[in-house]
Amino acid sequence: MNGQERDVHGQEGDGTALIVIDMINAYEHRDAAELIPSVRRALPPMRRLIDRARDEGTPVIYVNDNFGRWRSHHDEILDTVLQSPHAELVEPIRPDAESLFVVKARHSIFYQTPLEYLLFQRGIRRVVLCGQVTEQCVLYSALDAHIRHLEVCVPWDAVAHIHEDLADAALRMMSRNMSAEVCGADEVVLKSGG
Amino acid sequence: MNGQERDVHGQEGDGTALIVIDMINAYEHRDAAELIPSVRRALPPMRRLIDRARDEGTPVIYVNDNFGRWRSHHDEILDTVLQSPHAELVEPIRPDAESLFVVKARHSIFYQTPLEYLLFQRGIRRVVLCGQVTEQCVLYSALDAHIRHLEVCVPWDAVAHIHEDLADAALRMMSRNMSAEVCGADEVVLKSGG
Amino acid sequence: MNGQERDVHGQEGDGTALIVIDMINAYEHRDAAELIPSVRRALPPMRRLIDRARDEGTPVIYVNDNFGRWRSHHDEILDTVLQSPHAELVEPIRPDAESLFVVKARHSIFYQTPLEYLLFQRGIRRVVLCGQVTEQCVLYSALDAHIRHLEVCVPWDAVAHIHEDLADAALRMMSRNMSAEVCGADEVVLKSGG
Amino acid sequence: MNGQERDVHGQEGDGTALIVIDMINAYEHRDAAELIPSVRRALPPMRRLIDRARDEGTPVIYVNDNFGRWRSHHDEILDTVLQSPHAELVEPIRPDAESLFVVKARHSIFYQTPLEYLLFQRGIRRVVLCGQVTEQCVLYSALDAHIRHLEVCVPWDAVAHIHEDLADAALRMMSRNMSAEVCGADEVVLKSGG
Repeated sequence: MNGQERDVHGQEGDGTALIVIDMINAYEHRDAAELIPSVRRALPPMRRLIDRARDEGTPVIYVNDNFGRWRSHHDEILDTVLQSPHAELVEPIRPDAESLFVVKARHSIFYQTPLEYLLFQRGIRRVVLCGQVTEQCVLYSALDAHIRHLEVCVPWDAVAHIHEDLADAALRMMSRNMSAEVCGADEVVLKSGG
Repeated sequence: MNGQERDVHGQEGDGTALIVIDMINAYEHRDAAELIPSVRRALPPMRRLIDRARDEGTPVIYVNDNFGRWRSHHDEILDTVLQSPHAELVEPIRPDAESLFVVKARHSIFYQTPLEYLLFQRGIRRVVLCGQVTEQCVLYSALDAHIRHLEVCVPWDAVAHIHEDLADAALRMMSRNMSAEVCGADEVVLKSGG
Repeated sequence: MNGQERDVHGQEGDGTALIVIDMINAYEHRDAAELIPSVRRALPPMRRLIDRARDEGTPVIYVNDNFGRWRSHHDEILDTVLQSPHAELVEPIRPDAESLFVVKARHSIFYQTPLEYLLFQRGIRRVVLCGQVTEQCVLYSALDAHIRHLEVCVPWDAVAHIHEDLADAALRMMSRNMSAEVCGADEVVLKSGG
Repeated sequence: MNGQERDVHGQEGDGTALIVIDMINAYEHRDAAELIPSVRRALPPMRRLIDRARDEGTPVIYVNDNFGRWRSHHDEILDTVLQSPHAELVEPIRPDAESLFVVKARHSIFYQTPLEYLLFQRGIRRVVLCGQVTEQCVLYSALDAHIRHLEVCVPWDAVAHIHEDLADAALRMMSRNMSAEVCGADEVVLKSGG
């Protein structure tokens, strides 16, 4: 339908987006006990990164599992999670009115989601990935970004892991084999035109 | 993440879903004047079909354009549309608490959406397509269902068109080349186990 | 692997490719009798178009069904077809040493094929579609090109149909709803820099 | 086209396929020196596994990079490689007349290839992955198989790596996070009906 057409050439920001992966989470799964301490450490750098993106006008895109709840929308998932025992792990990085939202059903942020379309539509060619889990969804998403010729940046202190040794290997894989930039959250360049 | 795993073998209903395409609509696009009379005619059969699906426990899945509003969730889109001048075209077929929702960004209900995953996860192998536009999104979605080896049924009186001659050709294409069942809305079999 | 990387920014020709759809064909299927006269009429304009593309350095990409023969490569399929009773429908438009080849398994030239990747890798943003069947694979491929924001041109006299009325409707759908340029084969502009 | 339809319910073997990844290779890329000793060690178990699959009637599917050679078919790629200085790394595991072939353009065996379609068409729900590189294409392909709900088996002695530590981590990731069976090549069960 013609009304559905959009300008694919439109640019927003300067080609970078910050992606927040699976942080809207009730931490009820079986690996939660191992994951939570790492999330706690990653939260402050992640929060600073999100704040900086908002200040600089870099799009912040939350890509989150819907936990099979195809009836719920993202506000309902957020509300549920904010009433869970682990609300303090979600509150600091909650979406604001400008945040974009993409729901995913499987591990990668790209698999059967509209994320690739959203990025290309807005002229975004570089993604900064934060959130969880380093050696799972973050690794898989970095691969799926790289395979699509997107540039990838992963701040090592703003991603959370279950197994430290696998997370270390995952970061090395991203750096070596997916040409990802791995650096501290505070060193991430968001605006290329800075 | 293990918490994200779901039983891919779980069945719901008996393998058929009713898909409602692009009916959450403000009718502000340039073809609206030609489309609206056809929507008005299609609404009563579509309503009866949705009611029957709800009664019989057949999943009803709304797949709808998000009109580029990546910040909004489906309730917000519905609220906006229900306050538009054409709310009476949306009210009769509005989602209920059991409805499933999938947001699409482009013409086909399958292109860069999680619909294929949702269907396979629930054991759904047959889709009944109603909504709009017959010779556009409905045709494209029928093709994308057929290419994925799903069975397709299109009730000719529960789909709305802009151009009648193209809609007629589209229905013949679906019937002849995509093995779709084309019948009246009241003849659509929803439960195979009836 | 690094050896697998290719320059995604490399350009070839000037952004247009000529796609030849499903012409490597033994014409043994049940609609062959209706299709063959239309193929016969489309062959001379198609041949002129292919010759012109070769002269002007426009990439010619054959996208062809593999008929489920996952053991065969495209030369074997071509050899088989050239020994069939309908070799005269294939001979005039056979691939040459410069032709590119993509095998497809289903109706659309894009569904589960590397075509999208090949096009983007070479900076091709516009496709000219010729071959068969107008109201089937050509229509579906035009849609799948349009949904990916590629420009589409369809020379009406270089595509072959089974049903004339459906083919006419398909050409109008492509023109009206997919923004495709529909013109005669001899008017197709191949080099934008002409 | 009706002639393109195939029986999607047809079964071959008993639901398992052996996938040979990127072994048709000239070993000219920059990591070849580190890779070759590992390939040499993996070749005998890989050869025994391929022989056993052929004996037992398990489909053997070669999925191989085309190195950007869209003009060449797989026999040409094989011929070229068999005349290279490293032909002895290819000769022992060369395809035979029954082998199936899928060309890939990027890292994963599933990305923009018809492999998923081929597997579902033949009722294959479990893949045994051998070849190279453990911490790259093998890892990515295991993920893309798992995300599609296929069962995955990886014989640790029939996959070759560049970096041993990353390969070890990759095998643990596949085992722990992708539910892959990791075992010796000689212990791999090919026929479930044994």
